Amino acid sequence: MWIGQGRKARRCYGFDEVSLVPGTVTINPEEVDISWEIDGKRYPVPIIAAAMDGVVDVRFAIEMGKLGGLAVLNLEGIQTRYEEPEEVLEKIARASSEQATELVQSIYLEPIKEKLISQRIEEIKKAGVPAVVSSIPQRAERFGKLAEEAGADIFVVQATVTTLRHISSQYKSLDFSRFCKQMKIPVIIGNCVTYKTALELLGTGTSGLLIGIGPGAACTTRGVLGIGVPQVTAICDCAAARDFYYKQKGEYIPIIADGGMVRGGDICKAFACGADAVMVGSAFARAKEAPGRGYHWGMATPHANLPRGTRIRVGTTGTLKEILFGPARLDDGSQNLVGALKTSMGNVGARNIREMQLTEIIIAPSIQTEGKVFQIQQKFMK
Amino acid sequence: MWIGQGRKARRCYGFDEVSLVPGTVTINPEEVDISWEIDGKRYPVPIIAAAMDGVVDVRFAIEMGKLGGLAVLNLEGIQTRYEEPEEVLEKIARASSEQATELVQSIYLEPIKEKLISQRIEEIKKAGVPAVVSSIPQRAERFGKLAEEAGADIFVVQATVTTLRHISSQYKSLDFSRFCKQMKIPVIIGNCVTYKTALELLGTGTSGLLIGIGPGAACTTRGVLGIGVPQVTAICDCAAARDFYYKQKGEYIPIIADGGMVRGGDICKAFACGADAVMVGSAFARAKEAPGRGYHWGMATPHANLPRGTRIRVGTTGTLKEILFGPARLDDGSQNLVGALKTSMGNVGARNIREMQLTEIIIAPSIQTEGKVFQIQQKFMK
Amino acid sequence: MWIGQGRKARRCYGFDEVSLVPGTVTINPEEVDISWEIDGKRYPVPIIAAAMDGVVDVRFAIEMGKLGGLAVLNLEGIQTRYEEPEEVLEKIARASSEQATELVQSIYLEPIKEKLISQRIEEIKKAGVPAVVSSIPQRAERFGKLAEEAGADIFVVQATVTTLRHISSQYKSLDFSRFCKQMKIPVIIGNCVTYKTALELLGTGTSGLLIGIGPGAACTTRGVLGIGVPQVTAICDCAAARDFYYKQKGEYIPIIADGGMVRGGDICKAFACGADAVMVGSAFARAKEAPGRGYHWGMATPHANLPRGTRIRVGTTGTLKEILFGPARLDDGSQNLVGALKTSMGNVGARNIREMQLTEIIIAPSIQTEGKVFQIQQKFMK
Amino acid sequence: MWIGQGRKARRCYGFDEVSLVPGTVTINPEEVDISWEIDGKRYPVPIIAAAMDGVVDVRFAIEMGKLGGLAVLNLEGIQTRYEEPEEVLEKIARASSEQATELVQSIYLEPIKEKLISQRIEEIKKAGVPAVVSSIPQRAERFGKLAEEAGADIFVVQATVTTLRHISSQYKSLDFSRFCKQMKIPVIIGNCVTYKTALELLGTGTSGLLIGIGPGAACTTRGVLGIGVPQVTAICDCAAARDFYYKQKGEYIPIIADGGMVRGGDICKAFACGADAVMVGSAFARAKEAPGRGYHWGMATPHANLPRGTRIRVGTTGTLKEILFGPARLDDGSQNLVGALKTSMGNVGARNIREMQLTEIIIAPSIQTEGKVFQIQQKFMK
Repeated sequence: MWIGQGRKARRCYGFDEVSLVPGTVTINPEEVDISWEIDGKRYPVPIIAAAMDGVVDVRFAIEMGKLGGLAVLNLEGIQTRYEEPEEVLEKIARASSEQATELVQSIYLEPIKEKLISQRIEEIKKAGVPAVVSSIPQRAERFGKLAEEAGADIFVVQATVTTLRHISSQYKSLDFSRFCKQMKIPVIIGNCVTYKTALELLGTGTSGLLIGIGPGAACTTRGVLGIGVPQVTAICDCAAARDFYYKQKGEYIPIIADGGMVRGGDICKAFACGADAVMVGSAFARAKEAPGRGYHWGMATPHANLPRGTRIRVGTTGTLKEILFGPARLDDGSQNLVGALKTSMGNVGARNIREMQLTEIIIAPSIQTEGKVFQIQQKFMK
Repeated sequence: MWIGQGRKARRCYGFDEVSLVPGTVTINPEEVDISWEIDGKRYPVPIIAAAMDGVVDVRFAIEMGKLGGLAVLNLEGIQTRYEEPEEVLEKIARASSEQATELVQSIYLEPIKEKLISQRIEEIKKAGVPAVVSSIPQRAERFGKLAEEAGADIFVVQATVTTLRHISSQYKSLDFSRFCKQMKIPVIIGNCVTYKTALELLGTGTSGLLIGIGPGAACTTRGVLGIGVPQVTAICDCAAARDFYYKQKGEYIPIIADGGMVRGGDICKAFACGADAVMVGSAFARAKEAPGRGYHWGMATPHANLPRGTRIRVGTTGTLKEILFGPARLDDGSQNLVGALKTSMGNVGARNIREMQLTEIIIAPSIQTEGKVFQIQQKFMK
Repeated sequence: MWIGQGRKARRCYGFDEVSLVPGTVTINPEEVDISWEIDGKRYPVPIIAAAMDGVVDVRFAIEMGKLGGLAVLNLEGIQTRYEEPEEVLEKIARASSEQATELVQSIYLEPIKEKLISQRIEEIKKAGVPAVVSSIPQRAERFGKLAEEAGADIFVVQATVTTLRHISSQYKSLDFSRFCKQMKIPVIIGNCVTYKTALELLGTGTSGLLIGIGPGAACTTRGVLGIGVPQVTAICDCAAARDFYYKQKGEYIPIIADGGMVRGGDICKAFACGADAVMVGSAFARAKEAPGRGYHWGMATPHANLPRGTRIRVGTTGTLKEILFGPARLDDGSQNLVGALKTSMGNVGARNIREMQLTEIIIAPSIQTEGKVFQIQQKFMK
Repeated sequence: MWIGQGRKARRCYGFDEVSLVPGTVTINPEEVDISWEIDGKRYPVPIIAAAMDGVVDVRFAIEMGKLGGLAVLNLEGIQTRYEEPEEVLEKIARASSEQATELVQSIYLEPIKEKLISQRIEEIKKAGVPAVVSSIPQRAERFGKLAEEAGADIFVVQATVTTLRHISSQYKSLDFSRFCKQMKIPVIIGNCVTYKTALELLGTGTSGLLIGIGPGAACTTRGVLGIGVPQVTAICDCAAARDFYYKQKGEYIPIIADGGMVRGGDICKAFACGADAVMVGSAFARAKEAPGRGYHWGMATPHANLPRGTRIRVGTTGTLKEILFGPARLDDGSQNLVGALKTSMGNVGARNIREMQLTEIIIAPSIQTEGKVFQIQQKFMK
């Protein structure tokens, strides 16, 4: 479509603009298979807890692992900066809204302690569950080594925007191909959103890709930087890259939708767009086990010079088990995410994630229409 | 339209996005014919009360029947679980918003009593009006038989998503064709939204189809499961299936739009899209005769593990007669639904429902625009 | 565009979705000519006050006439039902929001007094200004005659939806052609919105057409009946009919955009779409001279069985002169409507209304976007 | 696209409807070059403070100049009407919302004093920074001369809508070509939005063009006059004119996006659309150095007869230095505008503004969707 003289732009879509179509065949939800595979290993729950300090600590990672999912511990967060993270987390929870961003900025000035990296990983491994940890590209070589030695199962290298070709004369950029080769454990790289970059990153030897840049309404990347690709289009495009790579090289590398999924329905749509797994933050921040005590903040919040997110109150609504498997006591799609996914797959007639990726999607915006406003009025009628 | 590389999606439309065009001929509203026919029997009012416990009980069904419409009694609800439903309904009405979902969940744990099925139907029949009852497919064979024996006039088999081909190794799926053949009273099947599934279901020997999956803003199916097709497109598609079936087999099977209609205008649009009748819930929950006492909840609300709806307060605004035939004392389109339909048909120049189905529809989104916000400001000006 | 299988719909546009493009030539606003002509007579102000009881009474019509505009007195309203309308209007203004619709309904049960028709028209004529009056088609023959005899200058026959071919076996429909021929004063007919109906009505001998069915957000016709065509498309279509009629018959019959214009910008857009004049209600209801005392209600509000509008509070913000010519003390486009039109015409480079009708229009929705919400937040910052 | 019979309209886009796509190459933000050039002179910061009385006075212009940017002093505002502007500004800040528009109207009735023009320019020049000043076309010849003599560096001729061909029989329009030739300092002309007008104005000898008519949600030009072109399309179109002019004449004349940018992201998008620099008002009104004391009003606000804007409270959130360079203490994109631009350019892989102008833009509306409303609900959960 033309946006101006000599200038074309492609229309992209977000979760709120699409919907899934029921199948001509339906399946008993109890009988659908939602497991996924990364680097030859199969996990029962395709929902990953994001590397955010209000979501994942050692205790949370252990509980998540026991329930069949994965949780990523941020190696550059509070857990590796502080021996006693509890009191720091308490402080964040008790701060007023006005102080929150500044407080978070100051807390992250404390240097990372390398021995805490090993210690946290060992604490998770002791419980017999997978340990997944993350860092930014600049620290990946050092922290990747430490993580590997401490027994981590997967290493995530994550930046807001990751490409194979980062230009800087001031520092040396991470050579992703060399890094993946060096690492003895699987590496997940992110985030990216375009077909071309996804294809390039798939060629590095990575075991998985994170898809999503500025998709969520909570994240302010789009407002601050003007950058962001809505998740439906981003996932479809990167899934096309994964499928093309698979056709060329015979290797199927899973893509993980990261960000912008606030309810069960959004997760279902992410799979329908082509995701192999999803990474979720705020939904898990509401768990009793979440270290954030009902608060949640993105990893761009502590940025010293240009914070792009703030601490938000999400509340604590149930245990992690309830959020994953129900029973739901809220009807808003924020609990029993696995049950929602299974029911959705049953209704569209998908026996497993690969079939779910082929579900028919329609464009059906759920904007604030007259009728909805009317209905809201009714709700608040006396 | 392309939503991503290699991925196309169709644009679908909801009631709030379309509008009807006045005709070049207009008709005196008093002289239009709104009656509809199912299984050879003609009913004067093409508006059916939905099988919801806050809407239909025996008393409501009788009043509705006397006014020329149909009301569906849910055989799996409070009326067949409790000898004395009044006190249970009172309890729901008195519960706080926080307790409501859990209370409703617990109330529906009480087993269904088969003798109450017969009793309720007989109570309705005693008043000399049609008895229409419903169950989910799993219980249709048993309850269908009981209903038939008790003298029911129509049996509705209803699930969120119904297809001819349901896959399960854990239980036997209902064989709709055999079921329709066995039943001596007309059967209505639902819900579906696509051309293909509608066509398959029409071939079962059913007397009617319910159209609508996750269309309403009040229903949270779309948020929880990501599934839903806006009603304008769903009705148009299923009407095309009905017309094709009629051309092939010579049998005209009515389709009933179910859900998403909050005002008279929405009902008018449903007919213009091709519906033969409409099924309405919340509008009738506001009647003095409604058992919900001004409260309303969907049949997905009591779901033990994944509730998809909650109890909402709709208020009591008039008698059922006033809601159907006026005089309206509210100007919001929630009263005098029959009068609105007749006036609309007169203005577009449709002498009967079949002509109304051919009315010109335009796309004219009623989004919350600047001008409307401005107007709302004016309204609240001192 | 396809809205469903075998079903196409045309995309229509409203004022909030379009905008005007500045010209490559601009003109000193003082030097543009905004006058318009009907039946050979030229009027300096192309803005007409609508036939609504909260807007026009004798005093208002006189003031409007003196300022160069026209105001339509409703012959079926309070002014012709009550000898002393002031106390009735006072009652409406003093009613609570809950009572308003019912009170208005009851007030309009009082029969129309024919002698008041003559009396009101004579009162207006005594002031030396044009008297314009209106009735519905059913009463047009009788009231038209009375109006003519009393010295009225223009007679308006107005119904929500008017066509040449109204079908009824219960009463005789008005023969518009015969009526126009009988009347010795110019007749304006309305309302219509489509090319075909406009063309048919233009052939009746009418001197003007009113364009607009259910366009305004305040009017609830679209919610109640599902009917309505957004004004941009309606005006463009009917302007095309007018131009075609002119080409065929050599007679230029003006079209008057009626409804949906809440601000100066909307009025400017109506002319750009092809209107020769505009008819405005709520903007004038805010005048000190308006009989509504800061309240406003549509002529569908008193409908006994199906009211489609309610009394709304608009407030009193200035004199009629200020609303028409400024100085504006509000910056929201509700004052100095003539100044706004002239400035707009100057900026797009239109010397007169005919040139304004050729202005370039763009589609540029002014939806409630993120940026606007952000800006509103800023406004309310402490 | 068709908006009505025989009537086509082009779809135009605003900032909120588009987004930028991350590059396949990324760059260290510290290493991107954001400088821009006008009339052979290069400035380090491509963000200009708008000629608004709540934003720019002598002190602000000096601080802006020291930080590498430009600030335009309005020669027709409070600074040249009052010897002691501080008390006048204090009065505006202390006025109630109701009085504000009328007070501002009255304050601007005070005549402009020519000696203050010279004095203000000299005060700025004394600090060793560039002096940029503005007037409307009617006063450009007189004030341009005064400004030149007083040592101004750039003269801006600005009106809401500027064309080469202004028609008036009452006064003589400014001959832009002659004016640019007479002036010894560079001239910037504005505002325009279309390809054709931009091309005509580029041929006058101007050194820069201001792009933007009625784009901002705060400005009420669109509501009052119906006129306005969304900035994305306006900038793309005028950038095409600039590029065409450059190809024909070999002269590259920068275009400056003016208005509608409320956050860092909007500024980034303006450059991606083709802007060489941006002009910003409200973001700077929030600076401690801004004369408005946390208040902001447009230059159309004091219009005696047709005000198109009002005084709004924006608050004071940091120093000008913080707003330009951070550290940001707000995460909403209103602080560290330069940091945001550099980070955005790094992420899309643009080494300088010229490369930024080629960034891929997508259409991705950020409307108030269901998901966002849901998220807002979460935020306010207890």
